Parts: sequence; structure tokens; C-alpha cells
Amino acid sequence: MTESRLYELLESVGIAVAPYHTFGLKEAPHVDFYPAALKLESEKVVHKSDYGAVKLSLINDQQLENARAEIIKSVTTRGVTLDENDRFIATQMIKGEELYFGMVSDPVFGKTILFGKGGVLLELYKDVCYIDARADRDEIERALRLTRISRLFNNFRGFGFEIETAVAFIQKLQKLICENPTISEMDLNPVMLTKEGLVAVDARVQFKDAAEAPQPPRQRESFFKNRRVAVVGASSDPHKVGYAVAKNALTFKGECFFVNAKGGELFGKPLYTEIGAIAGEIDTAVLTIPGKHILPAIEALIPKGVKNLIVISAGFKEVGDIEGERQLHALVQEHNLNLIGPNCLGYYEGSKNLNLTFGSDRVIPGSLAVISQSGAVLTALMDKAYQAGVGFSHILSVGNMADLNFADLVRMLDADPTCEAISIYAEGLQNGSAFMQALRECKKPTYVFKTGKSDESKKAAFSHTGNLSGNYEMFKGLIESAGCYIEDNIEALIYRPRFETIEQILIVTNAGGPASILTDYIIDHGKKLYTLTETDKKALDSVLPFNWPGANPIDIIGDARSDRYEKTLEIAQHFERVDLIYLVVTPQFMTDNEAIAQLLQREWKKPVVPIFLGGGLMDEAMRMLRGQRTLAFDSLQEATAFL
Amino acid sequence: MTESRLYELLESVGIAVAPYHTFGLKEAPHVDFYPAALKLESEKVVHKSDYGAVKLSLINDQQLENARAEIIKSVTTRGVTLDENDRFIATQMIKGEELYFGMVSDPVFGKTILFGKGGVLLELYKDVCYIDARADRDEIERALRLTRISRLFNNFRGFGFEIETAVAFIQKLQKLICENPTISEMDLNPVMLTKEGLVAVDARVQFKDAAEAPQPPRQRESFFKNRRVAVVGASSDPHKVGYAVAKNALTFKGECFFVNAKGGELFGKPLYTEIGAIAGEIDTAVLTIPGKHILPAIEALIPKGVKNLIVISAGFKEVGDIEGERQLHALVQEHNLNLIGPNCLGYYEGSKNLNLTFGSDRVIPGSLAVISQSGAVLTALMDKAYQAGVGFSHILSVGNMADLNFADLVRMLDADPTCEAISIYAEGLQNGSAFMQALRECKKPTYVFKTGKSDESKKAAFSHTGNLSGNYEMFKGLIESAGCYIEDNIEALIYRPRFETIEQILIVTNAGGPASILTDYIIDHGKKLYTLTETDKKALDSVLPFNWPGANPIDIIGDARSDRYEKTLEIAQHFERVDLIYLVVTPQFMTDNEAIAQLLQREWKKPVVPIFLGGGLMDEAMRMLRGQRTLAFDSLQEATAFL
Repeated sequence: MTESRLYELLESVGIAVAPYHTFGLKEAPHVDFYPAALKLESEKVVHKSDYGAVKLSLINDQQLENARAEIIKSVTTRGVTLDENDRFIATQMIKGEELYFGMVSDPVFGKTILFGKGGVLLELYKDVCYIDARADRDEIERALRLTRISRLFNNFRGFGFEIETAVAFIQKLQKLICENPTISEMDLNPVMLTKEGLVAVDARVQFKDAAEAPQPPRQRESFFKNRRVAVVGASSDPHKVGYAVAKNALTFKGECFFVNAKGGELFGKPLYTEIGAIAGEIDTAVLTIPGKHILPAIEALIPKGVKNLIVISAGFKEVGDIEGERQLHALVQEHNLNLIGPNCLGYYEGSKNLNLTFGSDRVIPGSLAVISQSGAVLTALMDKAYQAGVGFSHILSVGNMADLNFADLVRMLDADPTCEAISIYAEGLQNGSAFMQALRECKKPTYVFKTGKSDESKKAAFSHTGNLSGNYEMFKGLIESAGCYIEDNIEALIYRPRFETIEQILIVTNAGGPASILTDYIIDHGKKLYTLTETDKKALDSVLPFNWPGANPIDIIGDARSDRYEKTLEIAQHFERVDLIYLVVTPQFMTDNEAIAQLLQREWKKPVVPIFLGGGLMDEAMRMLRGQRTLAFDSLQEATAFL
Repeated sequence: MTESRLYELLESVGIAVAPYHTFGLKEAPHVDFYPAALKLESEKVVHKSDYGAVKLSLINDQQLENARAEIIKSVTTRGVTLDENDRFIATQMIKGEELYFGMVSDPVFGKTILFGKGGVLLELYKDVCYIDARADRDEIERALRLTRISRLFNNFRGFGFEIETAVAFIQKLQKLICENPTISEMDLNPVMLTKEGLVAVDARVQFKDAAEAPQPPRQRESFFKNRRVAVVGASSDPHKVGYAVAKNALTFKGECFFVNAKGGELFGKPLYTEIGAIAGEIDTAVLTIPGKHILPAIEALIPKGVKNLIVISAGFKEVGDIEGERQLHALVQEHNLNLIGPNCLGYYEGSKNLNLTFGSDRVIPGSLAVISQSGAVLTALMDKAYQAGVGFSHILSVGNMADLNFADLVRMLDADPTCEAISIYAEGLQNGSAFMQALRECKKPTYVFKTGKSDESKKAAFSHTGNLSGNYEMFKGLIESAGCYIEDNIEALIYRPRFETIEQILIVTNAGGPASILTDYIIDHGKKLYTLTETDKKALDSVLPFNWPGANPIDIIGDARSDRYEKTLEIAQHFERVDLIYLVVTPQFMTDNEAIAQLLQREWKKPVVPIFLGGGLMDEAMRMLRGQRTLAFDSLQEATAFL
């Protein structure tokens, strides 16, 4: 498509383009918008610059005429024979800040708009953001603000442009894409930000037959309606997964049945030799039997009215059995079942004490839901959560995601009142568009960690659960623009929700240096140090040595022992606007670490996060804190990583 | 200074400037370099744009003449009366990439050159680096490469410029600054990178009387010559600092004397009631007596030939006693003594088993030297180091730095053969120039952590040791350009040296997900995953289950127990090009964590860093590892933070 046709296309949705004029090959060029650029419009010359077919900074008709002659000579010399189909286009050279707008068709996320700093610096700074083709106004703005260049739209230096200018431009692009579904790729580089607004001065578009619209997601019942559960593969061999699942399942508040072809008894309950032998309905079944027995087992469950399946067993896509996984998918699709797995750790639901995992039984019910594509990551997080006192509403180990995917589960969790926040560990996505839609609609804070940033780890992830990992930067940008949080470590998935709403922080410390480091981290995370009032100071004066600095961080001086920490906390817990207290303990000469750790057993009116900065000297204190399920840190950076 | 005079100044050191021409007020302007800008040159109009005294993009003499008339009208309307001192300057408007070069006079570092992306984006991207006015070629290049925009000088897109072009420009600025010592500030924004090279198109310079050259550092003997040591203030009261110091001092390989006015005995050694009573010389003394007794004690030590003083006692600058600290400084200056402190934790020297700190006695001799401005940070690091098996050549707690500063100590450590790497915890600098010079000359890897990034923490640091914290970005940039490493957490000061030379890494894991996360972190840190050879694979095939992925990360499958880890390590330790093995253990159903931890007791041919990813389930394994002084982690991010 020629440049002039492209300009018409852009103008059709209201995008301003630089003034331009086209001429026949032999026409004497004249324009009234100098300085100008002259370019050849010919399908025979794709890379114009390489053929000397672009002349810039022309300031009068004479130079324009000379440029015309030079271009013809240059392309002719390079063996191109021009004819009546070829023309020239002269465009005004516009001064302004070069921006970039573009669109790509991503295999995971579909049509995605890009915005950023344009020109040569696009490549150098990679200051770009990603915007879903269906993003609404707020999502567009959130995306734009992820770039530094978007600050030009904060009325930068009196430029006069607000973010709305950029949002409106994106919306015009959305319209363009919607009205021209065959556009598969687009580069507007640069679009100039001038005093008159955004003006496109160069454009490149690719077309492709439009892809079929994806199937809308299946209407499903919630996965979280479990009253009668069967453990298919319950085993009395303590080395088997079926043993661990059965043992964990015992705490369930509903009814639970064990199935094992060998029969017998387990934990005082009968082992049914076949599913059909269980009286009444089974709404949920967890399967730990070998992969080849899974399909027959599900078929036997269907007459029992089963709705939800958890296939823990491995041996499908992740070992190359694409066909087996396809059959599994087809079966649950046909009967409109919900399935998580295969190749997963299982399922936990806090409010019903339902632990259908072969992970630890040390899980606390709570309000956080976790969805994980890795069972091992989940096991580690569950172990960490237990010791930090973090409780779960749901734990969903999704394994290969043969059926229920992130989008389905986010939607179900959003509707479930026991869940207040959602954390997702993702390795790869199948349908980015559906995921985006679910996140966009979700009203609960959602935290996402994704592996597969590097090519090397994509390989590792693929051999692991067999899903494609996409472009990480795009993933991150889109998820953040949907209003979710992207994490850079897995621990954040369990700790972050607790720190989400913190604004003002108080530090109580027995040393100045660590407090100063901690302050830097706090400010870096965009949080504030609480400012002590005169009343606060007076109260503290009564319990602290004369030489305490009289400010936050409250340095209670190196010789502080637990009594001084305690008195300080007793006062500080009443500081109304404080959201969090960091208790910093360094192993100084007089410090009674264990006694200080014991203070954390008391109920304080404010959350207190202890940092015992050290190694072996702090071991016992740390063990005590973890034993009482208190989130505690031995490093300043880690302690603030989740702010 | 007028723009045209500035251009002459720049041209005097060989800096190219845009073609320009000056005219008298009433002269008809004419130039042969369109497009051009016309500006008023008048001392009466400083902010030209605000007065309408700048006209851009003029393309012929007529427009130039019109611009002249408009400018005169505009400034006259605003109440300025022009006279024969005022002129016009017309400059060619040059197209190119806008760069920024500048110079500031920093209170800590002195004259410092800046380079970065210029124009409007200078403010938005803050993509700048800092270059010491005395930096040599290599230091300049290192600094430049800290910016993204410097990649334009990697023959970017065939532009044809190498880094040398930018280095040469900086060297011209160094010459300019050197030849014109009254220049105190300078902004060349923008300097255009054109096809012809770098061309300055706008300049602003400020002048100030040149400051006096700083005193060259005093010639000193090394602090590390200790044979006969006195502990002044040795105490038999276990709650006193003097007790801890005396106890720690007992392991010294040289001679050690205790002084306490009360007399008596301590740890089987006499307590001398006065310094003079000790027979023979005392080369080193550590003082733990109250601040007011310090000066008399030093005066008593001088006749004993003392060279080195460690003043642990507080009560000087940090509590506002500026005068006391001044006197202390004057005394050691007069007698050419070395002093560290006051207000510090003390001093440790590994090769002599000399522990003159009141910190822990659990210190391992080694090759790392640490200098710290915070005693508490040091205590914490010593405790962490002990449990990770990191040994020290020197530990220097510098406190208020009344005498010996970072520069002096770096120079001494560089000359000391027992030290192989230097780590510095800094809160504030007194003489940045001297520090830079010492770092520049130092041949040993140097790691620096600095607190006081935020204004809030600067306040905290100031109340702490009483030194000013400067601009962190400048600090970071200068230190890195001197070839040193800036750390973002204090733990790196003790762990980083161990990871410095790592290139190729092998992962042995019982789960795919964590290995994939770890891989991302490794690649992020610029390190590589080792690629298994066919021989490696064959060897591993013999000990691993059939479904191991056949690549690094070596996933030895979730049911792996310690024997499989062991067999894998036995093979992998012989992979020649592997520099480091991460052993990832997740708490799966079958995992025997403690037995795996025990494997680390064996001597492996490659460094093995265990990551036991979890919480309480991993506690015992982690304790075992720390007990045997093995660096071990329970988080993937932390485990790679020091790569």
C-alpha cells in the first residue's frame, strides 16, 4: 500500500497526518509547506532509503525539483525502470517529539497496540507499553502511564497536552483495527507530538486474512461447589501419592469416599473397589491413578453426577502424549465437566477444610487464592505461607491446564466470597485474550508471577508443563494495564497482599545504619515514613534515653534490650496514622534477641514486622517467630520486597 | 557571557559548534546556512524565549529580516531598551540526535562532567552518566557505557561513530575545565550528533572564583603493622564494651596489654593502671574509655611510640561535639598517627587473629576486607558471614572517620597481600575526589553499598555518624566508572566476591518450575547456563530416570531422593566448564531434605550452592547447612542476587 493510501486510511478514523501532495513522475513538483521531504511511491522500491529515493529538508521548489531528478537518476542507476504507476509524494517535515504507535498480532494475546518513544530511540530505550485492542479508556491510560515518555502528556513544560490526547489517539487506532480486520501489523513511526497535537508522518501496514474469532468461553458451574468427594486411587501405601491425598482429605467438612480397586480400608474408611459402588452422587473427584486409567475412571464418574475433576496423575502432554490430553479435553468438554490438571498437586479449599493435594497438611484457611502452573512452586509457597501465618481460601494446582485455565478460575474466584485476593504463578498461556478479559472484569487484587522471561527458561518451562511462554514484556505490560500486579519473585505471591494497603511506616531500631538503609527501601517502594507529632515525641521521651534522635526512624539506641523495645511498641501502637511498624534488631553487645522475639507474641494494635538482621546469633529468635507463625525477616531488602 | 563568546571558548579546545554569524542591531541579517535560528544577544534579556527573543526554522533572508524586526518589537514591548551593546546571533539549525554534555561542581566530588541524552528527554529519561574531571580514557569509556544513549556510538545503524568520538569530546571538556578553572557550571544542551560528528548548538556556562586545591593526603604508615597492642579500658565487667574487646583480643598472635585505672587482673593478665606502666613500645591501642578521657589517653600513648589508634568510644560529632572531634583530629594530625573511629565497633585483622572489636568472636580469617561506617551493619554482616563461611582479612569499623577515611584505607588494603577484595559500607563521604583517586588506583575488586539515597534516609544517616550523604546517582555513576561495583543490598558486600568470576552455571533440581525461574534470574544477571555435551548426557542417563529432560536444568524428577542428587553431583562435578552448581530442592512428597543437606558436607570439585525452597519443612536442612558454614538459600531470587 502506498504512503498516500495509508494516509487516507489513517484520516478515515480521524488521525491527523502531515500535509502531503502527490505528483506524477514527470510533473514539476510544488508545495506550500516547506521544509519538505520528497519520496518515491513505487511498489518496485520497498526500502526507499537504500535506493536513494528519499530526500529530506528541502526548502523551496528548486530544491524539490532537483530532488525529483536525483531520485529518478538514483533508482534508474540501481536498475529500476519506473512507469506511469509510480509517483512522488512530498510531505511536510514536521518538528516535534517523535513518538511511536504500532500494532502487532501476537499468537497469545492477539491484536495488541504499542505506544512509546519513537524514532531511533525506540530501539535504544524500548520505552513502550502494550494495549489490548479491546482495552477501555482506563486500561489505555494505565498502559500509557507505564512509559516514561507518556509524561509528555502531563502538560510537560507547558506543552499543553494531557493524557487524554494520547488516549484518544489509541482509541482511533482501536477503531481502525476494528473497521479493518485484515490489518495484521502496523508501524506509525514516528508520530510527531507538535503544538497542534499528534501528527502521523510515516506509516507502514501489513494485511493478512482475518483470523476466526475465538470461541466464547463455555458456561460453567463453579468449581467450588463440593459436598461429596471421591479420592480415586486412595492408597494405603505411605509412599504413594494416593495415600497423601487420602490422608489430607480426612479433614473435609463434607463427605469423602475412597476408591481403590484392591479394596480394604484406609484411615477407618472403606476403600470402594469401584466408583459405582458408592451410594449417591459424587460431585467432585480427585484422581491419582495411572494416566491410562484416567479416561475410564471419568466415564465411570459421569453416571454419579460428577461436576469437578482434579487429575493429579502425570503422563499427558508434558511427556508428549498430546493425543491422550486431547481425549481428556474432549471428554470433559462433552459432559461439561470442570477439570484441573492433569499433572498437578491437587486442590485445597480453606472454608471447607478440603485438602485434596498431596502437599503438606500444614495449611491455614484464609482469604488468599493461589493458582499455580507448577506443583513444586506451590509446595514451597505453601510451606513458606504456613510459617508466615498466611492462610488460603483456595489453592489450585492447574498442571497442564487441559480444561480449566487461568481465565476460568479467575472468574470463579472473583465470584467466591471466601477469596479476597488472587495470586497466579504462570509459565505459559494458551489464550491471552480470555485471560485479559477475566482480569479486566475481576474486582479483586490479582498478583501474577510469570516465568519464561528468557529463551532458556522458556525451554525449561515447556518441557515442564507443555505450554508456550510468550513475550514477557508484552505479558507484563498487558497484565499491569489491566490493573493487576506483576511480581518479580514467587514469595510476593503470598506476602504481597498483606502489604498492599500500607502507606505510612514507623521504624523502631537499635541502630541507625540499618534504619537508614530500610528508609531508602521504603521510599523506593513509594511508601512514606510516618512523621512523629509533638505528642508522640513527648510520649517516647518518657521511655527512651535522652539521646534518641526524636524522629522516625526511632533509634532506641544500641544498648536497648527487650524492655525498651516493649515500652516503645506500647506507645507506638497507638500512633493513629501508622500502618506498619518495622522492628529492627541488630545483634549488638547487649541485645536479648529471643526476649525481643517473644514480644511479637503479644497482640499489637498495628502490624509489626520484625527484622532480625544477622545470621547465627539470630537463628533462635527467627525460629521462635516462625514457630509462632509470624512473618519475620533477616534481611532489610527482603523485608521491604513486598511493600 | 554571550552565546558567540561561548562558542569561541568551545572552539578554543576543538569543540565544533554550529555555524553562526552575529549582526549589529540595525544590520540587515544574511546567512548562507538555512534553516537558521535568530536570537538576541543581550545581557538585559536572560530568558530569551520568555521575551520572544528567539525565532526558529527561518529558511531565507526575508524570514530572517522579519524575525529581527519581530524580536526587537517583542522585547521593546516588554520594557527592554536595547542599545549598541546588544547584537543578534544567527545559528544554523542542525538536524541530528540531541545529546547532553555538562559539568557541575559537586560539594563532595568536585568538578564532574555529565553526559547523556539531551533535549527534552534529558529530564524524562535521566539517562546520564557522571565523569570525574580527572578520569582517564578507560574511566571515561566505562562511564559513557553506563548510559543507553551511548549505544549510538557502537556504529549504531551504520551511523559510523564509535565510542572514541564521545570519549574525545569528553577529553576536550576536561581540557576546557582545566584551562578555565573559573568555570563552575556548564550546560551544552543539546550537542547534536550529526553525520559530521558532534556539534554544540547551545551553551550556558557559569563562572566562580576557583576553589583552592585540596591538600594532598598525608603520607602514612600502614595501619596494619600491629605487634604490640594495648586495650585501654579493658574491663572485668561483662556488661562493658571493654570486657568484650579484651576477651576478643586474647586470640592475638602478637602481644596484648590491658589497661584499666582500677588495676587488677583480667583473663589471667594484669590490668595496668596506666599506660606508662607497660614496658616497651605500644604500636596499636584500642580505646573504650569515656569520650572525655580519650585525648589524655592518646597523649599518654604517644611517648610509647603508638602509631595506630582505634577509638571505639562514642560522644563526638555524632552527638554534636564538633569541637571534641576537631581536637581529636588535630592531635593525631600533629603526631602523624593513624586513627579509626571514634564511635565504632573496632578492628579485626585475620592473618594475626587480631580481634579488637566488641562484636562477635565468631569470625573466620579470610581474604575479604570490609570497611563500614555503621557498627551495627558490620555486626550483622559478621554474623551472616560466619554462618556462610565467609572469612575476613580485615574488618574496619570507621565510625565518624575523624582521621582515616575510605581513601586512606583502600590504599592501605590495596597494598596488603592478605586482602583480595574490598567491601565498603558508606553513609557519607567527606572528600569524594580522594576516594575516587584511591579507587582508580586500587587493583583489587571493590564493592560499595551506600545508604542515603532518599532525603529521608540522609537525615537518618546524618544523625547517625554525622557525615553528609551526597547525590546518590552521581555517587553510583562515579564509583562504577572507576571500575568498582555498586551493590543494592548489604549482604552482597560479603557474598558477591565469591560469585564474581562465575560464568557458566549448572542447575540440578527436583522440579521444573523453580528451575525455570532460576534460569530467568541467571540470564538476567548476565550469566550463562552450561550446555550439556553428548558425553555429559550419556553419563547422566546412567543414573537418572528415562524421562529426565536431557538438558540443563537437570531435572532429576520429583521423586528424587538424596541418592539421586548424590549420583548426579558425582557426575556433574566433573563437567569442566561449569563454574557453579545450584542444587534446587523443593519439599516434595518423597524428598529427604536433611539427607540432601548432608551431601554438602562432602568436598565437591565445583562450588555447590544449595537452595532449599520452602519454609518450615526446610528448617532443619537449612540449620544443618549453616551449622557447617555453607552458604545456603531458601529463596530463588536471593540465591541469585549475588551473581
